[in-house]
Amino acid sequence: MPVRQGRYTLTLPSRPAITGWAAIGGKKEGQGPLGEEFDYIYEDTTAGENTWEKAESALHKDAVERALASSGTKAGDVDMIFSGDLLNQCIGTTFGIRELGIPLAGLYGACSTMALSLGMAAIMTDGGAAGTAVAATVSHFCSAEKQFRMPLEYGGQRPPTAQWTATAAGAAVIKQKGEGPRVSAVIIGRIQDLGIKDSNNMGAAMAPAACSTIADFLRDTNTRPQDYDLILTGDLGSIGSALLIELLQKQENIDISSVQADCGLMLYDVEKQDVHAGGSGCGCSAAVLCCHVLPRLASGELKKVLLVGTGALMSPVSTMQNESIPGIAHGVLLTSK
Amino acid sequence: MPVRQGRYTLTLPSRPAITGWAAIGGKKEGQGPLGEEFDYIYEDTTAGENTWEKAESALHKDAVERALASSGTKAGDVDMIFSGDLLNQCIGTTFGIRELGIPLAGLYGACSTMALSLGMAAIMTDGGAAGTAVAATVSHFCSAEKQFRMPLEYGGQRPPTAQWTATAAGAAVIKQKGEGPRVSAVIIGRIQDLGIKDSNNMGAAMAPAACSTIADFLRDTNTRPQDYDLILTGDLGSIGSALLIELLQKQENIDISSVQADCGLMLYDVEKQDVHAGGSGCGCSAAVLCCHVLPRLASGELKKVLLVGTGALMSPVSTMQNESIPGIAHGVLLTSK
Repeated sequence: MPVRQGRYTLTLPSRPAITGWAAIGGKKEGQGPLGEEFDYIYEDTTAGENTWEKAESALHKDAVERALASSGTKAGDVDMIFSGDLLNQCIGTTFGIRELGIPLAGLYGACSTMALSLGMAAIMTDGGAAGTAVAATVSHFCSAEKQFRMPLEYGGQRPPTAQWTATAAGAAVIKQKGEGPRVSAVIIGRIQDLGIKDSNNMGAAMAPAACSTIADFLRDTNTRPQDYDLILTGDLGSIGSALLIELLQKQENIDISSVQADCGLMLYDVEKQDVHAGGSGCGCSAAVLCCHVLPRLASGELKKVLLVGTGALMSPVSTMQNESIPGIAHGVLLTSK
Repeated sequence: MPVRQGRYTLTLPSRPAITGWAAIGGKKEGQGPLGEEFDYIYEDTTAGENTWEKAESALHKDAVERALASSGTKAGDVDMIFSGDLLNQCIGTTFGIRELGIPLAGLYGACSTMALSLGMAAIMTDGGAAGTAVAATVSHFCSAEKQFRMPLEYGGQRPPTAQWTATAAGAAVIKQKGEGPRVSAVIIGRIQDLGIKDSNNMGAAMAPAACSTIADFLRDTNTRPQDYDLILTGDLGSIGSALLIELLQKQENIDISSVQADCGLMLYDVEKQDVHAGGSGCGCSAAVLCCHVLPRLASGELKKVLLVGTGALMSPVSTMQNESIPGIAHGVLLTSK
């Protein structure tokens, strides 16, 4: 049963185990530094479907099914799945998992979804509401560009501050008992909005939320950055990461520079792959977590990782209406045992 | 700490209390049969804002603030808010509550959102993850028409099977201890999709999900329809309600006709107010719950109500791509004490 530590952090005494996981990527993701670590790479990013949205759903389903298989779990034995995505009305999720027959608590957290879903699934298993829960999410570059920016065919230019939506999905299976990396604590974030209005600079919009959540977590748990192998943000990119480090230093007198890394800067070779400020999208942190971080926690190479998923909670309509961009960041403490 | 009963139902031994609530409506809702029961009616459905989306956010914020006030709770003392809406990227939620500083677990459940958020909030309070949680949602006729169907100015005709998106918001405050109606059990639904493709007939698309959730709940809890004062669906409207009763009778041999009511048929005088098959939208069941049902549970007039929120998990894009409509239904058992 979760125990509140400080004002915002929940520690999970049973430390639920992540017993299986899977990461799926597209061609570009396969060509990145983590390409070899994915469970499966679709060389054809249509995934055999006739629309980008259906391709996104196919990736989602594939990730969940592979995660279940790696955990030796049947879909019918899962008590709850927490999942969401960036598409309007979360159709990358609802169509992706509709055939699995798993009770669905649909989430919306933009690019913070993997941390939110993992946090919810872990709280539910620790609190007795689920014996087995799944956390999953997905994004697709082509469906995201079409929906949030320009149709690909338009060939619009992207400013250097823009991030690249990952074509990727990640899923993790969480159980009350079992072998695997543990979820030891969760912090649900509060919206922070410092008035950034440039939807081509999401990193800047999300950095204050990451700052708030990390500072709250360290304060609540009475720990310091050097107590962690990794404080892994996802996905602030290069601009947001620099701003986060600066904000934490100036506002909170906390220096995370030696332990911080960002999923958006890990998924791609940022310069060679022309992704400007780095990767983003729900699938980015989900895939980096599931292909790169969880295996290293399982092996003991990493022992204590604070995953901080960040999301920009705007829409094209809110941007057109001259609104600023509310940011949010959810944190999950992952330990090797 | 929640206890699983049967395959899908969670009973909540501490029976968290709903200690405050509020319902906000627009002019049309104020003219309906429940008009007098709302906490506040906006005669001007712009709520003083210059866009429909901002009006929706304003309604959301108002509902949450009134619910907190009625519970004697400060926003800063809330541990988590569960909330979502129908707008793309849930901006009715994120912009609505961004100034409140409450940890946000964003949800997407379409018109089932109030049942999902109430269920999540109750599980979290029962399981120790939150001392105080808020469940809330909102919808706005004008923003929904603009986004899902036609701009109002177009003056499009609606078929008789169509439902009318409520301009309404509802919010409830849930505490581990306190006075008020109780949340005694929760069932998270599984997607059901029987192939309905007519997005002007959401009731038909959602009825199978309601059927599945109600049948599961009655089976899990070993109860019969007559054990409830009310099995309250939201929002199937007239067509979906008739289909639900028929489906449960034929497939499960369960007759709920004497205890079933539907929020979409309660919010409006369906014929006089020209809402065709009834009301819908996240705010419909939220408002009916908060203005009509919770007060009657508090007074003891109602003793045992199974709220079954139903959602159609499609988008305009999935409809254009000739996809069918996945339905979902989440259930929450509310008791007077």
